[in-house]
Amino acid sequence: MSATRYAPLPEPFALHAGGALPSGRIAYETFGSPAAAAERTILLFGGLSASAHARSSPENPQPGWWEEVVGPGRALDTERFFVVCVNSLGSCFGSTGPATPRPDGRRWGADFPTLSVEDIANGGRQVLRHLGIAQLHSVVGASLGGMTALAFVAQHPGIARHLVSISGTAAASALTIGLRAVQREAIERDPDFRNGDYDPEHPPRNGLRLARMLGTLTYRAPAGLATRFGRTRAATGDRFAIEEYLTQHGERFADQFDANAYLRLSRAMDRFDLAAHGDPEKTFAAAGLRSALIAGVEQDLLFPLSEQASIVEHLQRAGVATHFLRISSEHGHDAFLLEHALFEPALRRHFHPLNDQVIAHAC
Amino acid sequence: MSATRYAPLPEPFALHAGGALPSGRIAYETFGSPAAAAERTILLFGGLSASAHARSSPENPQPGWWEEVVGPGRALDTERFFVVCVNSLGSCFGSTGPATPRPDGRRWGADFPTLSVEDIANGGRQVLRHLGIAQLHSVVGASLGGMTALAFVAQHPGIARHLVSISGTAAASALTIGLRAVQREAIERDPDFRNGDYDPEHPPRNGLRLARMLGTLTYRAPAGLATRFGRTRAATGDRFAIEEYLTQHGERFADQFDANAYLRLSRAMDRFDLAAHGDPEKTFAAAGLRSALIAGVEQDLLFPLSEQASIVEHLQRAGVATHFLRISSEHGHDAFLLEHALFEPALRRHFHPLNDQVIAHAC
Repeated sequence: MSATRYAPLPEPFALHAGGALPSGRIAYETFGSPAAAAERTILLFGGLSASAHARSSPENPQPGWWEEVVGPGRALDTERFFVVCVNSLGSCFGSTGPATPRPDGRRWGADFPTLSVEDIANGGRQVLRHLGIAQLHSVVGASLGGMTALAFVAQHPGIARHLVSISGTAAASALTIGLRAVQREAIERDPDFRNGDYDPEHPPRNGLRLARMLGTLTYRAPAGLATRFGRTRAATGDRFAIEEYLTQHGERFADQFDANAYLRLSRAMDRFDLAAHGDPEKTFAAAGLRSALIAGVEQDLLFPLSEQASIVEHLQRAGVATHFLRISSEHGHDAFLLEHALFEPALRRHFHPLNDQVIAHAC
Repeated sequence: MSATRYAPLPEPFALHAGGALPSGRIAYETFGSPAAAAERTILLFGGLSASAHARSSPENPQPGWWEEVVGPGRALDTERFFVVCVNSLGSCFGSTGPATPRPDGRRWGADFPTLSVEDIANGGRQVLRHLGIAQLHSVVGASLGGMTALAFVAQHPGIARHLVSISGTAAASALTIGLRAVQREAIERDPDFRNGDYDPEHPPRNGLRLARMLGTLTYRAPAGLATRFGRTRAATGDRFAIEEYLTQHGERFADQFDANAYLRLSRAMDRFDLAAHGDPEKTFAAAGLRSALIAGVEQDLLFPLSEQASIVEHLQRAGVATHFLRISSEHGHDAFLLEHALFEPALRRHFHPLNDQVIAHAC
């Protein structure tokens, strides 16, 4: 049983880098009651490997990727807000992507067109249309989702009244592009990859596992790894515990994720550049935002705090009331998943009733 | 024409992790005049991919890996010192390693025994014996060489009067072990690897290239990569300049280096732990050191400054006069190669005649 629902994409669905998908759909889940006022809706975008399942539900009791943050009485309080979480376009958890069939029934595979973060944002916009939602309280995202939230406000001014972007970036750094390039190379050089036209029964598992091993390392910070693993030896074999941990993570991921989807999403993250939409200050000024919460982690190697600071600067110059939350967490980039409590006070303030009163007055 | 010479290993040559090499040799080059007093000899250990060729010479005019640091009038002044640089045991530039033949003529390959940093240090010791050198002014090393220098003084007290360890560590962190584990996995999962018994004509090139791409990224720091590459596009294709750079580095390395040698050296670096020789304070106190220069780079991801600080602490507690050089360089770990000028004043002070006077008195 699944809580996942689907919103169709318009036919065709134009893509940011050119071309179009002849048809498609976006998988989403909702949390809370849709009876809430329109300006009580939160659109939520997740990271590279996230599904639409942000939280457990009677239909799907498995813990979601933001189980402790979304829910009744939580920071994203489903007693007060209607939360719509989407699976990114191009991913492999229900939304159209390289692993889903084309209109003729064959898998997209290597022929899936170039994906942009902007397309993922537009996928979220289609879900809102499908649900008849014209106005958002907030667009919220973390990691890739934090980038997608920026792409959303850049492309759809006037819909979201507030922006929450956690551990995202307006444009990735050379190190981050390089680390993702190594991951892509691992997949593309796996003989089972077959230029992307792999047999779904024999995907490039080794490459995907290797990519995830490296990804996992870069989502963490040195201190967190030192605390958790240090130089402890693995239970078996002449290995260290950190090696065993990475292998297990890689194995699990290779069982779940589609290699072409990984490549498309990875490349989209490299290519995203908010400045391609024009001066970010003007973009934010035109976005109709009442406030923004931008959060980052000092120890984040992949989405360094300087990149969130740059988003904050643009927002402030655009006259948007912006709170910059600087977290110190030895969990690094993954702190929003592993140490969510650090983000909660700021999220609660952001979604506090006082915000609603401001909106009520402004309306 | 080559300046490389060879020192035989004792037969057998016992290994730190157990077992022995039935025979073997260490490749070395020397710079400066061996007529200098014994206490004017410097034993130099290099990084993971370094050969014995630290500097160009009439016999081999190709630039060495520390071309600007070793030579007449340089920080390691060959007009005053006799510099002996060794190729690490287990490497593939002349010293015995997985790519060299066993006594029966077959390549060692996957059967090469477990290598330790201690063995590399002992290889250097054998070169000194071969040259009839009983006393060193300094043992010097950077990166893996910085670790090897520690292993040398731990195992051979009373030989080196001074220690210079640059961007080394007494024990690698979980992050660094993890990053190396991913590189090893890339090699070992390459179908051409064949459990290490690969055809020398068809080595696991893809895996080695991938390993080096990741290695190269981690030898640099984010700021340096941002300055040099930023988000610049590559000249050809839909790629970023950083991707092209990593690929080129990887290709070049895969042409030069033996995969099994890489694996053995990589694993040796993980396994090294100075504390396995007993309390490091006691180890250093017993080493007969007059002074030490320990250097590190703030931006080093792989050998973080905290690890050099820990070496300094042990040395100071052992009563060794220690200078701790903390460099800020956006080149990160590779600063000792790319921004050697930052290290030179401290190196010059270390090798200054005043040191010699102290030695003369002490003798």
